[in-house]
Amino acid sequence: MDDKLMLMIPGPTPVPEKVLSAMAKHPIGHRSGDFSKIQAEIVENLKWLHQTQNDVLILAASGTGAMEAGIINFLSAGDRVLVGCNGKFGDRWAEVCDAYGVNAERITAEWGQPLGPEQFRERLERDREKQIKAVIITHSETSAGVINDLETINRHVKAHGEALIIVDTVTSLGATNVPVDEWGLDVVGSGSQKGYMMPPGLGFVSVSAKAWEAYKTAKLPRYYLDLGKYRKSAAKDTTPFTPAINLFFALQTALQMMKAEGLETIFARHHRQSRATRSAIAALGLPLFTTDECSSPAITAVAPDRVDAEQIRSVMRKRFDIALAGGQDHLKGKIFRIGHLGFVADRDILSAIAALEATLQELGYESFSPGAGIAAAAKSFNAL
Amino acid sequence: MDDKLMLMIPGPTPVPEKVLSAMAKHPIGHRSGDFSKIQAEIVENLKWLHQTQNDVLILAASGTGAMEAGIINFLSAGDRVLVGCNGKFGDRWAEVCDAYGVNAERITAEWGQPLGPEQFRERLERDREKQIKAVIITHSETSAGVINDLETINRHVKAHGEALIIVDTVTSLGATNVPVDEWGLDVVGSGSQKGYMMPPGLGFVSVSAKAWEAYKTAKLPRYYLDLGKYRKSAAKDTTPFTPAINLFFALQTALQMMKAEGLETIFARHHRQSRATRSAIAALGLPLFTTDECSSPAITAVAPDRVDAEQIRSVMRKRFDIALAGGQDHLKGKIFRIGHLGFVADRDILSAIAALEATLQELGYESFSPGAGIAAAAKSFNAL
Repeated sequence: MDDKLMLMIPGPTPVPEKVLSAMAKHPIGHRSGDFSKIQAEIVENLKWLHQTQNDVLILAASGTGAMEAGIINFLSAGDRVLVGCNGKFGDRWAEVCDAYGVNAERITAEWGQPLGPEQFRERLERDREKQIKAVIITHSETSAGVINDLETINRHVKAHGEALIIVDTVTSLGATNVPVDEWGLDVVGSGSQKGYMMPPGLGFVSVSAKAWEAYKTAKLPRYYLDLGKYRKSAAKDTTPFTPAINLFFALQTALQMMKAEGLETIFARHHRQSRATRSAIAALGLPLFTTDECSSPAITAVAPDRVDAEQIRSVMRKRFDIALAGGQDHLKGKIFRIGHLGFVADRDILSAIAALEATLQELGYESFSPGAGIAAAAKSFNAL
Repeated sequence: MDDKLMLMIPGPTPVPEKVLSAMAKHPIGHRSGDFSKIQAEIVENLKWLHQTQNDVLILAASGTGAMEAGIINFLSAGDRVLVGCNGKFGDRWAEVCDAYGVNAERITAEWGQPLGPEQFRERLERDREKQIKAVIITHSETSAGVINDLETINRHVKAHGEALIIVDTVTSLGATNVPVDEWGLDVVGSGSQKGYMMPPGLGFVSVSAKAWEAYKTAKLPRYYLDLGKYRKSAAKDTTPFTPAINLFFALQTALQMMKAEGLETIFARHHRQSRATRSAIAALGLPLFTTDECSSPAITAVAPDRVDAEQIRSVMRKRFDIALAGGQDHLKGKIFRIGHLGFVADRDILSAIAALEATLQELGYESFSPGAGIAAAAKSFNAL
């Protein structure tokens, strides 16, 4: 069937019809009072979503563009930074540092394992000359379905006193609590096709007063990604370069919907769906790739051992029009990932698990009692 | 009236309903065969539009992001380049060079005047040590409504033999002839909200084999704007970072429409509408800001002397829901600009001129015989 695709990948995520319709409106001029009104409303709601009074800037770029901006605006070549690497995205931010001649010390963990906060504490405590300029953390490591203990790592950064904390919240913002002001997160990057419930094409960066201080002396070259330009324009409810106008329309509607649902309700929904998905996967006898303690509320990674991950994805796609994500890099073919991020209802989790059961049967996998996945998911939902 | 806005600015330009509808489709995963098929079709049609066999790469960015990529991927700090500056955008590309420590020699002309090809010839001929690495030209200078003589300037660049020609075609591509291969244009940047008849959010860069040679030794730092990454992914019909999926849907439809209309027809339409608009403006006794010889086929700039430019824009907007562009920087309040770029029919020109006549009457401007503008536009249309 055409037009029946159901996205259960960690991005792009499902988009509400209201948001799609908003996007299909004819563009208006971006140097107009009407557009500035929309931008002002959006920025106010972005601050609500980020739980911050900091600037939240909007770029026509993917999440990677936003994160690169979040790194290069506050550093100079030769600066020492710590980068948490336990997946594809942590590795990427270290590569950004490499590309600009920033001295990135990688603090690693196996993909599927969380970063060790103690390793950060040790390095930060040893740095008595305060040479470490920033610590870069991927909050929810999408590639492995792991949530890192940002709160604890950030506490060590705060104890250091000098280093900025720069955070990739691409698949955590709008899925779990990221209290930017309460935790004092200096730079927070995200992208539109995730918790925002809208298509890709916009990147977001929140910037603290401390980060703006660092900006004054940061020397890495930039122009399109120069956040100072965005800040200056944002003060007049405009943008330095042509904004992705129709994506602003979509964002306006999506943020209104998020506000109507409420932050606590959104977070509870993601955690509930994560638990239900994990219960179901366990009941189907499929090994979870992460422990309960470090599982991302947005993505459940599964490492099937008696059935092929790619075959599961293929049947799910062809037979039931459900898109699941595969593994990336060395995990290709070894894991599959179920995204439950953004505009996902409990019903969608039940649909995905039911289709997964049917898929496993079709593939001749016999290590589960038919119906066990749905039973476990339902039980998990009802226990709450 | 709501929803009656008519865009006659140089971007965003009007978007066909078919393109808006395409954009409102639910996103699909960008790491899927279905998406790759769309990308493959788009890239083929982009090459058709650019009249090239060179790579044409697609970025989630504005035209400025695309042009910055087109500059920083092929140069190193300290490189000497010539930048043509006769408006806001030429100035901007020089600023990009400054930001990266590229030694930009500005070759200037007054806003409203075209760049002098002879000045380029002299500098290039004098450069016997072949130190000039690139010449950066804005083909259609949107801010002043001027088209620069790219063909002649490029001939001097070719005579030099070493320098790359890097061209901003943001408001010329899809409006007038830009034969990338025939002229040997090395790097050509553009943006989606212009001749492409779609909303903003995508930037395009075409890159020649000669430019890719320069890429190998170019040392400016970049990551999100690293065109080598886009080239590598494009070989597999994919993108290095999450593409703006729904804008790809829009682009697919818009390019199909452009192909159905045909390049020659599209160019002829823009030139016809430019001539008719200029005839009408002259018949209304309003001074044109540019001569016929250097007027951009996409934008007509008008410098009214006996009536206020901003008042004209205001009445056109409030009374007739037509958005015209104002002047930028030192031309603010001194000129207004009529965009006739992309999805514009001859009827739209007549509407705009008719509304302009009514506006001038409302403002008490008496230096024209009522109906003279429409008469001139109609005559111009019928003369062809």
